[in-house]
Parts: sequence; structure tokens; C-alpha cells
Amino acid sequence: MSSDPLVIFTPSGKRGRFATGTPILTAARQLGVDLDSVCGGRGICSKCQISPSYGEFSKHGVTVADTALSEWNAVEERYQQKRGLKPGRRLGCQATVQGDVVIDVPAESQVHRQVVRKAASNRVITMDPATRLFLVEVDEPDMHTPTGDLERLARALRAQWDVAGVTADLSVMTRLQPVLRKGDWQVTVALHHDHHGGASKLIDIWPGLHEGGIYGLAIDLGSTTIAGHLCDLATGEVLASAGLMNPQIRFGEDLMSRVSYVMMNPGGDAEMTRVVQEALDTLATDLATEGGIDPALITEVTLVCNPVMHHLALGIDPVELGQAPFALATSDSLSLPAREMGLTAINPRAQLYILPCIAGHVGADAAAVALAEEPDKSEDLVLICDVGTNAEILLGNTSRVLACSSPTGPAFEGAQISSGQRAAPGAIERIEIDTTTKEPRFRVIGSDLWSDDPAFGDAVAASGITGICGSGIIEAVAEMRMAGLLDPSGLIGSAAQTGTDRCVPDGRTHSYVIFDGTADGGPLISVTQGDIRAIQLAKSALYAGARLLMDEMGVDHVDRVVLAGAFGAHISPKHAMVLGMIPDVALDRVTSAGNAAGTGARIALHNIAARAAIEQTVHRITKVETAIEPRFQEHFVAANAIPHATDPFPQLSAVVPLPDVSFNTGGREPGDGRRRRRRG
Amino acid sequence: MSSDPLVIFTPSGKRGRFATGTPILTAARQLGVDLDSVCGGRGICSKCQISPSYGEFSKHGVTVADTALSEWNAVEERYQQKRGLKPGRRLGCQATVQGDVVIDVPAESQVHRQVVRKAASNRVITMDPATRLFLVEVDEPDMHTPTGDLERLARALRAQWDVAGVTADLSVMTRLQPVLRKGDWQVTVALHHDHHGGASKLIDIWPGLHEGGIYGLAIDLGSTTIAGHLCDLATGEVLASAGLMNPQIRFGEDLMSRVSYVMMNPGGDAEMTRVVQEALDTLATDLATEGGIDPALITEVTLVCNPVMHHLALGIDPVELGQAPFALATSDSLSLPAREMGLTAINPRAQLYILPCIAGHVGADAAAVALAEEPDKSEDLVLICDVGTNAEILLGNTSRVLACSSPTGPAFEGAQISSGQRAAPGAIERIEIDTTTKEPRFRVIGSDLWSDDPAFGDAVAASGITGICGSGIIEAVAEMRMAGLLDPSGLIGSAAQTGTDRCVPDGRTHSYVIFDGTADGGPLISVTQGDIRAIQLAKSALYAGARLLMDEMGVDHVDRVVLAGAFGAHISPKHAMVLGMIPDVALDRVTSAGNAAGTGARIALHNIAARAAIEQTVHRITKVETAIEPRFQEHFVAANAIPHATDPFPQLSAVVPLPDVSFNTGGREPGDGRRRRRRG
Repeated sequence: MSSDPLVIFTPSGKRGRFATGTPILTAARQLGVDLDSVCGGRGICSKCQISPSYGEFSKHGVTVADTALSEWNAVEERYQQKRGLKPGRRLGCQATVQGDVVIDVPAESQVHRQVVRKAASNRVITMDPATRLFLVEVDEPDMHTPTGDLERLARALRAQWDVAGVTADLSVMTRLQPVLRKGDWQVTVALHHDHHGGASKLIDIWPGLHEGGIYGLAIDLGSTTIAGHLCDLATGEVLASAGLMNPQIRFGEDLMSRVSYVMMNPGGDAEMTRVVQEALDTLATDLATEGGIDPALITEVTLVCNPVMHHLALGIDPVELGQAPFALATSDSLSLPAREMGLTAINPRAQLYILPCIAGHVGADAAAVALAEEPDKSEDLVLICDVGTNAEILLGNTSRVLACSSPTGPAFEGAQISSGQRAAPGAIERIEIDTTTKEPRFRVIGSDLWSDDPAFGDAVAASGITGICGSGIIEAVAEMRMAGLLDPSGLIGSAAQTGTDRCVPDGRTHSYVIFDGTADGGPLISVTQGDIRAIQLAKSALYAGARLLMDEMGVDHVDRVVLAGAFGAHISPKHAMVLGMIPDVALDRVTSAGNAAGTGARIALHNIAARAAIEQTVHRITKVETAIEPRFQEHFVAANAIPHATDPFPQLSAVVPLPDVSFNTGGREPGDGRRRRRRG
Repeated sequence: MSSDPLVIFTPSGKRGRFATGTPILTAARQLGVDLDSVCGGRGICSKCQISPSYGEFSKHGVTVADTALSEWNAVEERYQQKRGLKPGRRLGCQATVQGDVVIDVPAESQVHRQVVRKAASNRVITMDPATRLFLVEVDEPDMHTPTGDLERLARALRAQWDVAGVTADLSVMTRLQPVLRKGDWQVTVALHHDHHGGASKLIDIWPGLHEGGIYGLAIDLGSTTIAGHLCDLATGEVLASAGLMNPQIRFGEDLMSRVSYVMMNPGGDAEMTRVVQEALDTLATDLATEGGIDPALITEVTLVCNPVMHHLALGIDPVELGQAPFALATSDSLSLPAREMGLTAINPRAQLYILPCIAGHVGADAAAVALAEEPDKSEDLVLICDVGTNAEILLGNTSRVLACSSPTGPAFEGAQISSGQRAAPGAIERIEIDTTTKEPRFRVIGSDLWSDDPAFGDAVAASGITGICGSGIIEAVAEMRMAGLLDPSGLIGSAAQTGTDRCVPDGRTHSYVIFDGTADGGPLISVTQGDIRAIQLAKSALYAGARLLMDEMGVDHVDRVVLAGAFGAHISPKHAMVLGMIPDVALDRVTSAGNAAGTGARIALHNIAARAAIEQTVHRITKVETAIEPRFQEHFVAANAIPHATDPFPQLSAVVPLPDVSFNTGGREPGDGRRRRRRG
């Protein structure tokens, strides 16, 4: 039909015939092949690099001659000399079609290149960030048809990039004229597109081609820890990750104690706002330093957090969140200049996006977990527990998704635990207790060796053995239960009852000694009865929240469980289930999602469509309010036993036998045991 | 056809039949009658007051019975008791139709009430400001269908006022929850509507019905003076007007000297920005004090100014405006938070609207003059001269409008004049010189008496006689020319040449003494040769600009002239024409428009549609650049003579004979005379 040369693109497989002399970039655009270009085909940015393949391609039915593409032209030669191209590469905007050809578009030349989210998952994020760079050539001013420089820039963006309605605030408008002249009327602009439509905001402008890139921060602001990722907004690469403690902890360890602080200390919210905003600014600076970039190149921030942190970070008094009906000041997603939230270390025009809240106790962090884990797309009924100081719990499948939050307290993060510490070198993270000898062995962060390995001492000499982190305490308590050192009510037995001297008296109760370093001036690391109680409270709150959602869904079991949270990836499914943190399910149906809230923040940072999607999704999520639900209290009390007072755990029993012990000697430690009996 | 009662509204004449029991407000809305309501018919705001008329109305063909409206109900009674209604008034939302009735809508009950612009003109402004108040009832939060307070407020505004897409910035979001609760879920909000569409911005919120009103500032920022009006955004009433000197004068009296200052002193623009922003803030505070209102109730500002002031006020380096091609950083209108321009004394969320610039030398002030004087709607060919330190000149009619600016310098404002002063009590503003005796008589600001009145001395005792203001110097120079004390080249004659001892030697030239108060320790007020030269330069620039526009239009005369500017209302048309400030035209075709730029700012403040209109209009105005036009120089030189070297002034000659004198004694004062001869 046509004798024009055939152009075949890989990996897309898209093909078409084009007149001899057509630039490859033009052909790609006409076929809808994803081939990047920042400079709009001027041979400057090199984003459109392609790899032509030569020879016989029976699969495609073409033979590609050596002359299939045009000779190198002056623009390509100049680029090659100045910056160099990888062997076999050509500039797609300069090389033209001369004969049938097969063109490979390498991953880094795709606009919507995909980024594998994390090793543990095959989920990919398609790059389509809200803020992108555009190289543009602006008309010089003409006295006879006067227009402003900004208006000519906007006109050029419309003509060259089909971007309409550019707005600029004063702080960038003041820089416009010198930058345009320095770049000789060629400039790179960073534009922020609002996903609700509307104007494109001029975030920054550089003379000529800006090669320094632009970057984004994805922040998960938790009650106890603040975690952030610094990401390249072009490639999605994570340049740096860092975390720091939430300085609000000094006003109260959990959310409700912080709200109480405000109620008791009028104006206390402003102080809490100040310290958390400063911490966020510090985190941004630290990440930029670690990533080796100018903080002014951070042009975009996404934030997820629970509702109380949401209000406190924004400077909104959270007092309404402390009492029914738990009214949020605002529930929708927010788009605002990041500097309004005190982020002064980054680009002054950087935009902040905060994911929507689901309800007064179910925040943007839960929305982020939903975005990352997509329970609404699961055929199986999936229970997702994002474990932190507050647990965000989601239950659902393609037909319905429920959500609640539950105040687990900071025990799972190693706080309120006698030997607890944050996850850092020296912290015990894994533990096993021999069911016969009752002797423990453990591993500490920073070494892969177990403590009974002869080389262990040398391996941990630098860090020492300093305490127990969140995943370590979960394993310790579960192992104690499995070894018969702990009865179902949560009582630690005496040395006589358990047959091990590691169970030592501790006031009117007992403790189990894991490691005694006192002889060398080190710590005595043990699990106390108080630690057991703290873990029981935390796990009961988590289980009760999950159970409440199951009630609401009308089910007695779930198909699979996802453990998420800053330390979610480190929780052993078996130990979590021995503890009764999560409902009974086959162990191979329990997976870890790592920091799913942080991943949700990163997805929203990298893909603008994900913002619109999660805003829709949260409206379809049914919120369950734990704070005023009487059954939550019932479930909480019943869940105090290890693993549970009444719910059967058949799948667990099949793989882990739990000894039937009881250390209640009559009235000395009655608390939960009595309650359990009352309900039994 | 229908037996429903007939309701006739005056003054609109709109009429319709409505079921018995229909509230008058409802009937008005259905007929499109302009009847205000802030509370949406809840009987709270009393904005919908109406006056029923009773008896026989042959004009309307109805008889209105005493029972035509419902009895007073409890809501009306309560309102009457609490606040009182004028006699004969009813609340339109409470009174219902019971029979045929004639309803008068008083002016203050009309939303789009019209405000007479000024006594000198019948032009009216229809009230439809960008920022308006709305009383709204917000749903209380419901734990079972959680939404944020902001989202419920937005929903209520959509349902009750048909306002879509409300946005709020953090500073008001933080106040939302306490105000909603204090108002028991009834609040008044001030919303700003962008005239380009898009979201409505929440400017402020008050519990219950806010009765304090909201206010706007219309500011004309000139090179020499800054003038502002404080206006009620509901009624259009001007509560206070004030002016102050532009503190940038110390960096240079005219625009180009300020641009030069920046070129010579890098960073000098920031200092000029600071002082002018501080002055604007001071002006706002002064106006609020004078108007007796809380400055936080100022929620809207409009600003007009020339391009250099525009850039300096916004913090944009004006250096590009000092050299061809005179590129503006931005030419379109600007809408931004007023605090970004340093206005910190008013509402922190007050919005600022700056009218569009026309070109690098033709600014938002010229656009404002076009908005106020509407040359594009004139059937006659009208020349509008807005006289200040820089003159904005417009020439046009319904087919075409041209614009330019001309650097007249500050002489017309009394600056650079030996006895010059600003228009204040004690300043000579009118002057007459007897053509026979060559004796002057004058009037000073603050008294209506002429100086030859026996009571004059007492009348001005308080103010004294202190100097000459802008209109005074124009009259003085013109009267000197008419009395034969000044020749066409601008030379003042000697006592011998003129026959009056008031012409005294002054170096190598002469001065004319108007008032000698030195005997009493007062000033010697005279017109020096230097003063004549300053006025000649100013008037030549003005005339040359006008003439350039006439060339471009291809005409030799105009149909009428409008003199505008801060002191435009005070210029005597006859004297202006004797001076040759403006082209020859019948004297009764020269009118004054007062501060037309300030009026334009006030129109844009009060009517949102005017903003869109002027943005369209400026695109249709043809800009003429005086700075690089060779003919401007030619016109300037020819206009140096008084009234003109070559252009005939037949209309002027018919009413004012000008003596044909020449005081050039050969080479002593050659300057302009020689130039004139060279061109003659």
C-alpha cells in the first residue's frame, strides 16, 4: 500500500510507515510510543536516546540495512563531542528514517518509565509526577507588540508543550527577566500540574537546559517516628532514606496524650506544631545532604500521617479529634505550598500534597496503605495491619473495604518496654527459646550470627548488645509462650514453675533474663511482667480492631494477612500469630509489606493519577469507629489472653503446639485472668 | 388565566402571579428582581427589606388591599424588637403574598445597587464586588459519615448559595473549627470569586451573622503621590480618602531617574520596594483609622500604577523598563494575596487585584483611565490626558483607541518649581493678571476670596500664603503669556520691556513677582525663568504625546479633551490651552475627570465584570512608544513655544487674544527660540 519505510519500536511493538526523512522522535510521537524529550527535539537534552538494531529480524519480518537511519548530523556530532552517547545510541530527534528499521527505546528514554517499588514486591510505579521539567524557547520582547516576559513564556509553553494556563507567584516572577536573558531566551522550567486540572504553577526556572534534575520527598509522619525518602522525580530512584524521632514525644507518647496536653495547656498545639515542622525541615535537609543534592531542587513533597499528626503538622488545634464525633477540620486531600507547613529548607515554591483522611481516627496514612496495598483490588479477603503507635487496619476485597484505627501504643516500637530500644545496631531483633532447656539464643541488628555462634562475640563487639527492638520483643514474648515460660493469661512463671533460673523474681512478679551483660558493665536484658502487659495491651488493641472489622464484614476468618508498618517487614508471622496479634490464618498467607504508608506517599509523589485514584477510593472505604464501639472493648478484653481467650487458632495449632500451663497461684496476679474467666 | 395574586415590583416593573403564601423573596428570585439576602431567607440579615404599597394603582391596573401581605410573623416580630425596621418596611423573606400587591425594593435592598461615581459625572458603578459575605448553616459532624468541617462548609455553600469549589488556606483553616462551634454551626463567610472562574477562596469566617461589613481599598500608586479610597464592599460608599507622598521620591523624582538609581546601585530596587510597600501599609492603616473600621475587615485591594511603580511595588527589578524594548516582567492583570505585596496591616488573606499593563511605558494606570473614561465607547474622538509626573494619554473612539505615556516630570505637580508646593491650604491655586496694569490677583486653597478682596487677609491668616500648587503655576504661566509678560518662546520680559516693576532681574534672566511677603517674614512668591522652562518641558512632553497619537490616528484635531489626574479636576481648560498643553479645541469641549485612574481602581474594586472587561479592552488598545519615536522629539521641540511654534490654535484665538511680543534681545537666552527658528 505504501512504500514508505517501516519503523518498528521495541519493547512496545508499535509500528508504522513514515516518509523518508522523518525524525524517529516524530515517528514515536505519532505512534504513541513512550519516548522522552525535555528539549522538544532540539538535540539538547538527550532524553530521546534510542538504539537502532540492524540485520535480519524474522520475528518482525524486516531486514534493517546499515543505512536505515540518516548519517550523524552536526547536532548529534556536537552532542557526542560535548557529552558523549553510549555506543549504539542515537538522538531520536536528529536521526531520521531512511529505510525499514527496528528501534529500541531504552528504559531511561521512556517518560513513563516504571520503577520497581521494592525488592519484596513486583508492584511497579509508573513515573508521571506532578512536577516536571520543560525546556522552552521564548520569543524575545517586541516593543511593537508589547507583552510581558511571563506571558511570552506561557505562550511558548502552550505552543511547544501544549501546557495551558501557567501561573507564577511573585517569588519566581522577580527572577524571570534575568534568567530568560541569561539563557538567551531558552530556559528550563519546573511546572507543577494540579491533578484536579486548573493552572500549571511555575515552580522554578533555570537558564538554558537544567541538568541538575528535580527531586521529591515522600514523608510518613508517624506518632513516634518520621520517615522520609528523597526521590528523583525523573527516574523514581530513591537517593536517600532517613528517619528521626517525632519530637512531639515529649508532649505525650501516644496521640490521645498529645490531644490531652493541648486540652490541659492552651496554646500547646502551637508548640507541638513548631517542633514537628522543625523536625520535617531537618529531615529534608538531612536527606538532601545524604543524597548529595541542593535542597532547593526539592520541588515536591507528599505527606501521610494520622489525623492528629495531620492537624498538628498543619497548625490546626487537634482538640476536636479527642472527643466524639471526632470531627476533622478538613478531610479531603490538601495541595498547598510546602513552606506554609514550615518547610523552609527546600525550594520556596515546592508543593505539598497530603493524602486524604478517611475519618477522624483513620488518616492519610491509612489512605496511603490502601494506595500501596490496594485491598480494593484483591480477590481474596485481605486484612492489612499497619502497625505503629497507632495501628491502621484495613479489611476488604474487590466488593468492599473497611477501615479503622486502633490505639496500640508504642510498645510494638520498643517503647514502654523495660529493655526496649529503636531498631538500631545492637538491638536484639530475633530470639529463639529452646522448649526443653528454656535457654535463649538471639541475633542483634548488624550481624547475621546467632548468639550461640562462636564468632558472635567478635561480630557484635562494635555495637554491643544494647536492648530489644520491636520485632525482638514480639518474638521474645511469643517464644516464652511456646516454651511454657508464660501462661495464656500472660503470667511469667517462677523458676520453680518453669524449671529455669532465668525466671527471676521481680517484686511480686517474675522476669525472664535473656542476656546478662552486667559483669562486663553491660545491660541486663530481660522481659518483665510489665513488658508482657504492655505487649498484651498493644496486641489486644490490634486484634480487637481487626475483629471489629471482621464483625462488620460478617466473617470469622480472612484469606490473608499483610503486616505493614515501619518495622512490619521484620515481624515474624509465626510469632505474631502465637501472640494473637492477628487472626488465625495459614502462616504462608501472612506477608510483610514494609512501610506501606511510606510506599503510598512515594506512589503519590511519582504518579499524579494515583492522587485522583486514592481520593476516589477513600470515599468508598467504610470507616469503623473503634473508640465508641462497645464490641471493641469486648474484643479487647477477650484478646488479652495469648493467643486468645475464646477465638480458636486451628491453623496455628497445627504447626505450633502451645503448652497448657497456668501460673496463677490464686489472687496474686488476677487482672486479666479473672476477666477472661468472667467472659469464658 | 390564573387567579393567583399578582405581584408587581418597583422600580424594575417586573411582575408575575404567585400562589398565596409565596414569600416575597421567593417571588423576587423567580422574576429575577434584584433583592438582596445574605442569610438566605432566615429572617436574620434584614438585607431583603421591602416596602409594600397599598391602595389603587391605575398605572399598574391593580388595587392593593391592606391584607395583600401576610401578618407579621414571629421572625419579623423578633427582628423588629431586636433591631427595628424602618416604618412601612417588611422582611421580604417572611412576608408572603396574600393578594395583588405592589412591592418597592429600596436601593439598599438591591444586591447590585448602583453607586454614583462622583458628583461631576452621572456615571454609575453597579455593585458586584469580587468578595462578598454569605451566611450559611453547616451540618454538624456525624461520626458515622465522617467528613471534615471544611468539606461540610463547602457542601452547605453549594446547597444554600450555589457556590462551588471553596478553597481555604491554612491560616483560615486553623480557625474553622472554633468559629463553627461558636456560631452553633451558623457562620458568615467572606468569599472571593476569581473573575476568570475557578475556586472561591475563603477569605474569612465569623460566628453567626457578621454585621461588621467588609471593606476594600482602591489605590492609585503614582510616582509622586499615592492616593487611596476605603470603600464599603456592600454599598460602594467611600468611607475615607487619603493620600501621601511616594517615599521613593528620595531615590529620584521621575521614573527614569529611579530606574537609573537601580542601574547604578545594585539592590537599590529592593530598598525602593521596601519603602513603597511600607507606605502602602501606612496608607491602609490611615484609611482604616479615618473610616473607623478594623483594618482586618479590609478584604480586597485594587491597585493601579505605571509599569515602573508596578514592578517596584511587586519587588521586580525595573531595569528592563529603562531600555528598549522596555520588556515588562508580566503584563497581564495580577491576582495575588495582598500580603505578598507587603500589605500586612489588613486582613491576612485580603486579595490584591492589579489591573493589566498596556505596554512597557503604558501601565495599569492607563488601563484604569480607560476603564473609567471608556474612550472605546465614545462616538466622538476623545483625547484623555491623565496628568501626573508621567502623563498617560489615550486617544480614541468606538473604532480604535491609542495609548502612550509621556515623561512630563513633576512640574505639573508643583515640584521643580521655585515656589512650588503640593495642593494644600495656603497654596495659590488660581491667578489672574490684569492685561493693562500687569497686576496679579490670586486665590489660595482654603478660601474662596480673591487677594484683592478686603477680607482676604483675614481669610488666609491661618494658612498664610505659602507657595503655588500645580494648577496655580499653569494659570500663572498662561496669564503671563496673555498679559504680554512672556513671549511665545517662553522668555520673561524685563521691567522696561513689559512696563511693570514686578518683572525683576534674576541673574541673566527675569522673574515675575506674584506676592512679596518678605516684609512680614513670609515668602517671596514669583515665577522664574527656570519655572517657565520646567513648565515648557512638561507641557511639550504632554502635547507631543497627544500629537503623536493624532499622527498615528491620522487626524489633525480631536472632538473633545478630558483632563484627568490627581489635580486634573483643578486645571482651567482655558489656561491649559493658552499654555499649549492640549490641542486646540472649543473650550466647552474640555472637561475634567478628576483622578480617573483612581476611579478605575474603584470600579474594579466594586464590579468584578469590569475586571474581565478591561482585560479585554487593553488587548484592543494600540500602544505607541514615545521613547523611540523620532517624531516625538520633533513634536516635543515644536511644542516648546507657547502655545505652539507651528500648530494653529484657531478656537483658542477666537476667545483669547495673545499679544505678539518678543523679548529675545539677541543671543542672551537663545535655547528654545533658536530651535524654533531652525524648524520654522
